[in-house]
Amino acid sequence: MPIDAAHVARSPRIRLGMVGGGQGAFIGAVHRIASRIDDQYELVAGAFSSTAEKSRASGADLGIDPARAYGSYAEMARREARLKNGIEAVAIVTPNHMHAPVAVEFLRRGIHVICDKPLTATLPEAKRLAKAAAASNSIFALTHNYTGYPMIRQAKAMIAAGDLGDIRVVQVEYAQDWLSTDLEATGQKQAGWRTDPNQSGAGGATGDIGTHAFNLANFVTGLSLESLAADLQSFVPGRRVDDNGHVMLRYLGGARGMLWCSQVAPGNENALRLRVYGTKAGIEWAQEDPNYLWFTRLGEPKQLITRGGAGANAAAGRMTRVPPGHPEGYLEGFANIYAEAARAIIAHRSGAALDADVTFPGIKEGLEGVAFVDACVRSSKRNGAWVALAL
Amino acid sequence: MPIDAAHVARSPRIRLGMVGGGQGAFIGAVHRIASRIDDQYELVAGAFSSTAEKSRASGADLGIDPARAYGSYAEMARREARLKNGIEAVAIVTPNHMHAPVAVEFLRRGIHVICDKPLTATLPEAKRLAKAAAASNSIFALTHNYTGYPMIRQAKAMIAAGDLGDIRVVQVEYAQDWLSTDLEATGQKQAGWRTDPNQSGAGGATGDIGTHAFNLANFVTGLSLESLAADLQSFVPGRRVDDNGHVMLRYLGGARGMLWCSQVAPGNENALRLRVYGTKAGIEWAQEDPNYLWFTRLGEPKQLITRGGAGANAAAGRMTRVPPGHPEGYLEGFANIYAEAARAIIAHRSGAALDADVTFPGIKEGLEGVAFVDACVRSSKRNGAWVALAL
Amino acid sequence: MPIDAAHVARSPRIRLGMVGGGQGAFIGAVHRIASRIDDQYELVAGAFSSTAEKSRASGADLGIDPARAYGSYAEMARREARLKNGIEAVAIVTPNHMHAPVAVEFLRRGIHVICDKPLTATLPEAKRLAKAAAASNSIFALTHNYTGYPMIRQAKAMIAAGDLGDIRVVQVEYAQDWLSTDLEATGQKQAGWRTDPNQSGAGGATGDIGTHAFNLANFVTGLSLESLAADLQSFVPGRRVDDNGHVMLRYLGGARGMLWCSQVAPGNENALRLRVYGTKAGIEWAQEDPNYLWFTRLGEPKQLITRGGAGANAAAGRMTRVPPGHPEGYLEGFANIYAEAARAIIAHRSGAALDADVTFPGIKEGLEGVAFVDACVRSSKRNGAWVALAL
Amino acid sequence: MPIDAAHVARSPRIRLGMVGGGQGAFIGAVHRIASRIDDQYELVAGAFSSTAEKSRASGADLGIDPARAYGSYAEMARREARLKNGIEAVAIVTPNHMHAPVAVEFLRRGIHVICDKPLTATLPEAKRLAKAAAASNSIFALTHNYTGYPMIRQAKAMIAAGDLGDIRVVQVEYAQDWLSTDLEATGQKQAGWRTDPNQSGAGGATGDIGTHAFNLANFVTGLSLESLAADLQSFVPGRRVDDNGHVMLRYLGGARGMLWCSQVAPGNENALRLRVYGTKAGIEWAQEDPNYLWFTRLGEPKQLITRGGAGANAAAGRMTRVPPGHPEGYLEGFANIYAEAARAIIAHRSGAALDADVTFPGIKEGLEGVAFVDACVRSSKRNGAWVALAL
Repeated sequence: MPIDAAHVARSPRIRLGMVGGGQGAFIGAVHRIASRIDDQYELVAGAFSSTAEKSRASGADLGIDPARAYGSYAEMARREARLKNGIEAVAIVTPNHMHAPVAVEFLRRGIHVICDKPLTATLPEAKRLAKAAAASNSIFALTHNYTGYPMIRQAKAMIAAGDLGDIRVVQVEYAQDWLSTDLEATGQKQAGWRTDPNQSGAGGATGDIGTHAFNLANFVTGLSLESLAADLQSFVPGRRVDDNGHVMLRYLGGARGMLWCSQVAPGNENALRLRVYGTKAGIEWAQEDPNYLWFTRLGEPKQLITRGGAGANAAAGRMTRVPPGHPEGYLEGFANIYAEAARAIIAHRSGAALDADVTFPGIKEGLEGVAFVDACVRSSKRNGAWVALAL
Repeated sequence: MPIDAAHVARSPRIRLGMVGGGQGAFIGAVHRIASRIDDQYELVAGAFSSTAEKSRASGADLGIDPARAYGSYAEMARREARLKNGIEAVAIVTPNHMHAPVAVEFLRRGIHVICDKPLTATLPEAKRLAKAAAASNSIFALTHNYTGYPMIRQAKAMIAAGDLGDIRVVQVEYAQDWLSTDLEATGQKQAGWRTDPNQSGAGGATGDIGTHAFNLANFVTGLSLESLAADLQSFVPGRRVDDNGHVMLRYLGGARGMLWCSQVAPGNENALRLRVYGTKAGIEWAQEDPNYLWFTRLGEPKQLITRGGAGANAAAGRMTRVPPGHPEGYLEGFANIYAEAARAIIAHRSGAALDADVTFPGIKEGLEGVAFVDACVRSSKRNGAWVALAL
Repeated sequence: MPIDAAHVARSPRIRLGMVGGGQGAFIGAVHRIASRIDDQYELVAGAFSSTAEKSRASGADLGIDPARAYGSYAEMARREARLKNGIEAVAIVTPNHMHAPVAVEFLRRGIHVICDKPLTATLPEAKRLAKAAAASNSIFALTHNYTGYPMIRQAKAMIAAGDLGDIRVVQVEYAQDWLSTDLEATGQKQAGWRTDPNQSGAGGATGDIGTHAFNLANFVTGLSLESLAADLQSFVPGRRVDDNGHVMLRYLGGARGMLWCSQVAPGNENALRLRVYGTKAGIEWAQEDPNYLWFTRLGEPKQLITRGGAGANAAAGRMTRVPPGHPEGYLEGFANIYAEAARAIIAHRSGAALDADVTFPGIKEGLEGVAFVDACVRSSKRNGAWVALAL
Repeated sequence: MPIDAAHVARSPRIRLGMVGGGQGAFIGAVHRIASRIDDQYELVAGAFSSTAEKSRASGADLGIDPARAYGSYAEMARREARLKNGIEAVAIVTPNHMHAPVAVEFLRRGIHVICDKPLTATLPEAKRLAKAAAASNSIFALTHNYTGYPMIRQAKAMIAAGDLGDIRVVQVEYAQDWLSTDLEATGQKQAGWRTDPNQSGAGGATGDIGTHAFNLANFVTGLSLESLAADLQSFVPGRRVDDNGHVMLRYLGGARGMLWCSQVAPGNENALRLRVYGTKAGIEWAQEDPNYLWFTRLGEPKQLITRGGAGANAAAGRMTRVPPGHPEGYLEGFANIYAEAARAIIAHRSGAALDADVTFPGIKEGLEGVAFVDACVRSSKRNGAWVALAL
């Protein structure tokens, strides 16, 4: 084993609560594992489900003190805020339409928020939440978890350092196949809320995964969108939201891009893929094989940079736990967002300045994501006219 | 070696002439190799260059009778048409703007034409050529060579047989990097004419490679375009044609697609890639690894079908020379177009009916390709408005 | 997200101690993360280093009660055994030569052992430890962590079910490059003890990684070795143990194999790769891309089975936390061994019968591994003569 | 298209005959295509089958003058040697046991020989043939065609230039699956003679494909074998030759290697793979994806060198017809051997000195290959004892 995993000098664990994530949920379990990997959090409370009984059952599974398994997020916010050792942070893992009301409730009590994406189901909600966050002194982290992958950090740093020259072209896509059929009609819970515009927002695939793709491209390139033109489809008969979206992108400064998101592409499991090309070089990365980054300099042989390996930079190194060739995956990438948030929360405890390297998506990125969905829907309704984000 | 390469009972070789393809050319040599691989053609005449002297020099290199190395295509057409054993077919490998005048000259003398793509530099020319071809009794083959790859034939047959169900989404792209800099300013011949709108037509990357991508998607899916919306760029300062193009596609029948073509994407050598998704399954293919075809049925493990291997169908088998695991490449795919044209020419000799399996791109596909470029340019000038092909 | 991560109803966490794993160590941190991922363990004590001071410093980093950060494993064993809520299990992450003395000390006090591989540095030690384990009522788990990967479980179950027919050929290899130079001379700690026969045992690469390869082949195929012939090398001048080994394998029942292990193969980070071929089909798996398993049935297209995806079986499903396309990696595979051990420890608490699905390497596999190294060294000294394991 | 295909100034085509390669044969057709690709040969005569009638039928298919489609190789040699424009070279594509008698007959008449591999079925035959070749003034080329791949030439030149440092480890393998069942019992012609020791020699897989693997490793590394230890198997019941072989290699100078050849490994089509590791770097190459070469320098990111692309050297360039990203394959590699032989034959015509770059396998490599099979068989019979080649 060529390298040593760093010891992290530990502050007391951050006391964490959770809203959502009860039995039958997917992303709640992911957040819990992510919070544990680096041992910076301790889950001590939760409003896991919409009824007190279900919430307590989930809490029992998770070893939570029954007194802190709440029947509603409002009760939880109120009571935890009064406890001497109440939660310092809350993870929000509900369907999208609940993000804003829950987050506002905790933010106003000075409790930090780690919220699943997209920020909200609608743009007005997003703006309200942004105001609440701005008015609060608390930290707000949005789990655009793919920004936590080491090779994504590597790519971002390389582009920032000018290794690609001026960016010309961005190709980003996120394809899945699990909604190729009318799964929501079967009662499958994940499909149900994600295809219900009242819970997910006006965007289907655009909201669920298109936002990830859009965010990842922004994060890595540092570019800002000028406008987009979108052609959205609902291929599965009866579906109320888009399940496939084609988007052309124009970035400020002249770069151009394409974004494809789909949940009806058989053979694609979770195929988020980013390619960026500049005047001097390109990079290519695929989420399903996240430990590899292609770096292609014009006129030189292609290089395959590996996580932790030769050519990996400090930005990737900050996110790395095990040596090259020992693959890290989705959960480690997710944990990196939790770790970044922990650094911010711990600094906040003491009022210490935050290390400049600490980077994680927050309100700004969340607003952009919701505005992206809104713009896609507006453009598509106008037959693919170019529209700007309504920020 | 598990399978036997078929003996092909041989008719007398087809007497072939060539226009273009002299010293410094690229695609002429490719056509010559392609014509030799299956031993169905014999190159016996040519107007290889724009001067008689250069043409004779090239002819000498190629072992051509000096009397049949002509100084102009017009002279060649006139004289070969009068020879007892004059050429039966001509390969046209000039810059685009010469395709139409040359082809017309030979077609009107009853000489078959094998023409490089795109069909012409402009849409009016394409229509004139189409009329000339319709008025002629001769065969017209357009070397959209990528349609000659066995696994492309496999994919086409699978889709025709319904293996993918109804097509929903087409993703096609063709990326290169060799025009990332202002190569035309260096006097490089290939770059020179390809970026000169007078020789290449109004499309740069769209015409040179976008047409291949567009054609390949049509060929494999059997779909016809309803309309497109394009955003074209000329990233290299001073370049007179597009070097990157983003196109959204709407097919008749409801399928949707995206097409990306670029000659400024560092790390991409000749990255033509096609993905098609239907209600039941998807396929994925990449030109740089042409012996593989992914077949992804919804709810089943991915299959990797190999040329000549288990799962390869008869349509692929017709195009296959060597056993699985013995890779075939670009030249063999190109040769398959020559072989298909040879079958048509040989049938034409005797008036025999052509085997229904014989398939190669011709005037129709050529017209569509030029109309595709025309539509991309029109749409892009109208800020990405949806436009139909002006066929 | 197509599938739900299961809630695991939780028993009280297992109280865990650790021997080794102080500052500068690699594998200790891995064990700690692995123990946390599924929230079944709580690290409460440790003898992290060889001095009390260093051990306490490491303990402080890890949030361990200073009273339970011990200066020696012997003290730790003695005192924890007397505590009311002393540790139930100990993770041993020292250099190899310390495994046996440490393990014996805890086993004799009824404390379960989770021990890094190889079992011991020498075969006599391994046999003594095996006796101690047999005499104890405690559970002994050996972290041949690669057996925890879901697709390895998948392959094992497929072979057990006869999907491959009778096994004929095993090809297994484990290549790294980090010892290509005389790294031990630089004072690098990992290289130092791994190339010191007094700490690592007579095998270098064979002991450090060859044992993993050997174990993985046995685990997946269910085969037992009859004999081997080995040719070991120490390519780096002055190195005292092998850094590259070539081994031919004969299994009982007639299967044959080859094993290559190397730490001097530039470009190989942690390239453990297993291929097994039977009368009906083959499987191929690579540790660096662990979410994929090739399944190649004779006369059918190749299948790529993905973790959690279509074709994944129940044995893989038991080891899976997140949906297909969300890659799991080394730490999750390692955590699966911890999770299996936890199931055994929890059943042991109550005397409940252990679920028959629970599978993890233990003393038997450890003995075989040390005997494998011993046999390689003996065979190589006898110029590659065939030798049996001295079990 | 970034590069121009070179014009090759053409000498008159080499008049070529063929022995073997009639209906039902595989490799004869490959030789014919290979001879045509660069237009340096013209097939004008043949003894394609063992009877005059069959030979004429094959000749007719191939457009051969019926007077030159012979009923026996002896007749062909005798008569062609007397013709004014008789053949200058003969391609021998018979089963192995006929290589020597046929070759001797042509060599003694001053006709150049291009012979399929392995050189002969037995070592004594090989030595006799070697003498006949030495006594002749003619050129002898052995179609170890894999040495014709551009990236193999690239690797050879890189190693010769010291880019890998001192070679330590060679891993070479050649796996197929087409003999996983008792195919010879079905009357399949290719399987029939290849598993008949009277036609193929004592080696089965070792002779048919192991010789390729052995040759390729020698060709690329420039190393010579000191000794080998082999464990050969005949897994298919009743098979008279080996169908799987495991071999450990010791090269002069201290490098060590492993060679695996198999025709019973389901999922392997034609999986020849070479990996070489030195003190400074490694290379990896796979025949089924021949346009790629991994170059892995210790402590630097992996490089993927592509045929014709950045990083490709002059040795690769000599073998390249089309630009990077336009894949070349098996037939082009095979054609490269024909092209190298043509250069030698054309130089021989005029007595000109041969360009030092011209490289192709001949008698020496053929002898080594047959001696390799002989050594494998001897070692395996002696239970894997180390034996030297009996050259």
